[in-house]
Amino acid sequence: MNGAEALMRTLAGSGVEVCFVNPGTTELHLVRALEAVPQVRPVLGLFEGVVTGAADGYARMAGKPAATLLHLGPGLGHGMANLHNTRRANSPLVNIVGDHPTRHKAQDPPLESDIAAVAGTLRGPVRRPENPTGAGQDGASSYAEALEPPGQIATLVMPADVSWGEGGTVAEPMPARPVPPVDPAVIQRVCTILRGGEPAVLIIGGPAGREPGLRAASRIAASTGVKVMLEMYVPRLEHGAGVPAFEQLAPYPEQVAAQLDGVRQVIVAGGKAPVAFFAYPDQPSCLVPPEAKTQILAEVGQDAVAALTALADLLDPNSEPELSTAARPALPTGALTATNWAQVIGALLPERAIVVEETLSSRAPLAAATAGSPRHDMLVQLGGAMGEGMPMAIGAAIAAPDRPVVALEGDGCAVYTISALWTQARERLNITNVILNNRSYAVLREEWKHLVADGVDAHSNRLFDLGDPTIDYVSIAEGFGVPGSRATTAEELAEQFSRAIAEPGPHLIEAIFPPAA
Amino acid sequence: MNGAEALMRTLAGSGVEVCFVNPGTTELHLVRALEAVPQVRPVLGLFEGVVTGAADGYARMAGKPAATLLHLGPGLGHGMANLHNTRRANSPLVNIVGDHPTRHKAQDPPLESDIAAVAGTLRGPVRRPENPTGAGQDGASSYAEALEPPGQIATLVMPADVSWGEGGTVAEPMPARPVPPVDPAVIQRVCTILRGGEPAVLIIGGPAGREPGLRAASRIAASTGVKVMLEMYVPRLEHGAGVPAFEQLAPYPEQVAAQLDGVRQVIVAGGKAPVAFFAYPDQPSCLVPPEAKTQILAEVGQDAVAALTALADLLDPNSEPELSTAARPALPTGALTATNWAQVIGALLPERAIVVEETLSSRAPLAAATAGSPRHDMLVQLGGAMGEGMPMAIGAAIAAPDRPVVALEGDGCAVYTISALWTQARERLNITNVILNNRSYAVLREEWKHLVADGVDAHSNRLFDLGDPTIDYVSIAEGFGVPGSRATTAEELAEQFSRAIAEPGPHLIEAIFPPAA
Repeated sequence: MNGAEALMRTLAGSGVEVCFVNPGTTELHLVRALEAVPQVRPVLGLFEGVVTGAADGYARMAGKPAATLLHLGPGLGHGMANLHNTRRANSPLVNIVGDHPTRHKAQDPPLESDIAAVAGTLRGPVRRPENPTGAGQDGASSYAEALEPPGQIATLVMPADVSWGEGGTVAEPMPARPVPPVDPAVIQRVCTILRGGEPAVLIIGGPAGREPGLRAASRIAASTGVKVMLEMYVPRLEHGAGVPAFEQLAPYPEQVAAQLDGVRQVIVAGGKAPVAFFAYPDQPSCLVPPEAKTQILAEVGQDAVAALTALADLLDPNSEPELSTAARPALPTGALTATNWAQVIGALLPERAIVVEETLSSRAPLAAATAGSPRHDMLVQLGGAMGEGMPMAIGAAIAAPDRPVVALEGDGCAVYTISALWTQARERLNITNVILNNRSYAVLREEWKHLVADGVDAHSNRLFDLGDPTIDYVSIAEGFGVPGSRATTAEELAEQFSRAIAEPGPHLIEAIFPPAA
Repeated sequence: MNGAEALMRTLAGSGVEVCFVNPGTTELHLVRALEAVPQVRPVLGLFEGVVTGAADGYARMAGKPAATLLHLGPGLGHGMANLHNTRRANSPLVNIVGDHPTRHKAQDPPLESDIAAVAGTLRGPVRRPENPTGAGQDGASSYAEALEPPGQIATLVMPADVSWGEGGTVAEPMPARPVPPVDPAVIQRVCTILRGGEPAVLIIGGPAGREPGLRAASRIAASTGVKVMLEMYVPRLEHGAGVPAFEQLAPYPEQVAAQLDGVRQVIVAGGKAPVAFFAYPDQPSCLVPPEAKTQILAEVGQDAVAALTALADLLDPNSEPELSTAARPALPTGALTATNWAQVIGALLPERAIVVEETLSSRAPLAAATAGSPRHDMLVQLGGAMGEGMPMAIGAAIAAPDRPVVALEGDGCAVYTISALWTQARERLNITNVILNNRSYAVLREEWKHLVADGVDAHSNRLFDLGDPTIDYVSIAEGFGVPGSRATTAEELAEQFSRAIAEPGPHLIEAIFPPAA
């Protein structure tokens, strides 16, 4: 057995079921191994940003890593932006990067580059087996390391001669390290603080965004009156009727200052103390109010859900969470605006949907409009690298093939990884893509108001204008094999969305509205 | 004056005329500076691979660096594949990457990543001004460093507070280091070798691909009988009627072995001794025949053209180069094939064209079909990272607005940076894109024959099949605002190509033919 097959069989035995691939010559034996190991489903992306974003979406819904297969340094480079998002989401991933044999690297051929240095910036382990015997063992280690709490990217650089060399051995799965619990003394300390009655906020994030964490946080609020908030970004948020809903930390420092006004205790579980997304002159980077103390109930990587549950029980074992009631917004009418599109989604969201949201400047209305919709999972990108939405939708749909996926995309974001549509079509995935097309980098015009503010209006700057020429997403979608339609009114969006959800396979709806002033 | 404006004015004063941009919040003051400094033309790309590939194409035709403007680590990541190609082409580039202020980085906000470590793999200098005063000086240094022979990527990481901070000063241009000459003793030694009469090959690359280098090499051949060959990839090759034409080194080791069979002296000017593009079992990485000696006439970065000219004069001051005669191929007829498309291009190539070629599996016929066409420049990607063709065409068209640009793209390559079409339309560039659509990763099927060869046919592997669904490039082009048409016969291609060349602005022609068996 060659090293490639030993690696792929090891990964299959460890639990890998899907490999997202954009191959090249150095990966051909790994491609051959994917034929030989049918337990691992190969999914082709035409661009590595699709591959890595899909792997992130998969991990969030499957709760375990997929593998990626990338072509040398350039393939890793193309994949880096969504690997950055994957790292920020703490999603587990076995990131396989093909490489030249060492003897070939020494000749500095055209595709040679420093793969390990680039992969090292992802802060997970980087392994490079030296021979086919090591390929299986490094595969088993990488899988276990990917699952190291809270989850990370384990990169496995596979030299081509290790892939093609004989003598490979399948390695036994290695146990993943369990999620470390929180010290009961810490839980007791937070309990005492909350009972002390100082104005407090409990900020939850990471794994606490799923139902058990949300319920525990809501019980804590019920028994203490503490304000519960969500981190600015949560990798997998259970949302809608029947689960507790909380306000989310806003993106701008002055908004967060208002949200945390008067707070004296900031308690954090499963996430980090609030930090500004971007820096601004005369604004702090750390958004904990200066007069407040920060208490970490559960560090990132600790068992935040168990800690929240223990805290809720300690405060009041009989407390009950407050659950969102089922209540859809009314279907709006008239021309689409930067807000009413969300009411259409809220009104028509199907049961058990997975909602991938990358709308940026149109983000705010969505949470409100879907709070009483049928319960769903909401996935957002965590690293600020644009273009993860439609790839994440691929991964989510593959991890949960019985659930409808709705991808809500800003037009600026959608272009980065537009070929994700082709993979959606090829794999016949039930994804409804809605492109919110305001024909601008609207979020940058908004940031300009906060940041530049020298009297020159952002609208005079052509670098934020995506309207010359206008991009026709319907035409592009059809070019990639995905049926498309265009909506300019709420009624059209409602009709097209309902139809897209009802039909199998991917669809794209281009929702056109003017940018906010 | 703030740091951003000081930087932009310094770069303008040094010689930067174009900045290829995909901005984010951390770059807004640099965007504002581009408004204030009209000497630098901002060109928006919707994806950073378009931005960096365009900068490479620009540098090759302008002979000096453009600037790029990328958004933090993810923007750099998306740009890395074409930065790799840029590095391999030794194209000069001032690569500006926006960053958070240092105080903000310390809080590890979502977009924080190790920009310097990633940029460091590009092997050029990485500067990060600490204050607005330093921004101008670092800009002047970066420009001069980008032009360090043979040309390199000078990365300038601009913290947002350095951009917005007052106290910036415009720095004087710094002199670029001149191209170092070759030691006359080396030229004399090679002269002696060539006169010795051993079977020899003279391999030229880099700057020797332009007319003076080609003419000198041809004169050397005329006076000694030495076989002149081109490196596998030459960044800017002058080609067609009136310039000397030489055989190019082939991609596979056994092909190169045949090309160099019997050679005892390998003389290299402006490039490197031949290396296999990929490694194969039982094939060497270094392709210099074992019985041959290697003589470097001009190292990469030395003045190869002057050395070749001096050598030609030393051998025979009266020698004359052999020039390609004007002779276009006849227009073929019938269904398009993997070879006859090139005859259409050769037959109809306009005067003074810039041809960007990224066809991979369809590469071979082109050089032959265009050898007698009107003289043109041929640009190829040097690093093996797919998806540089259409972006390079943007940069070439901006550097040489009076020349028609023809971009010949394999379908597998075109998708990576497909949004290049939008920038072509926005900037009204005279680019005729021809997508050679064989609906497969044909080059990987070819590599499979060389590399896997275990009896399983590549055609059974769906990972090489781009035909499910078929990609409709005409529809995609129109979605990005570029008129498109489809050709399945040589006659159709000829008619559409002629029309596209005659009309201003970009066009896309999808040329459909079956993959080779």
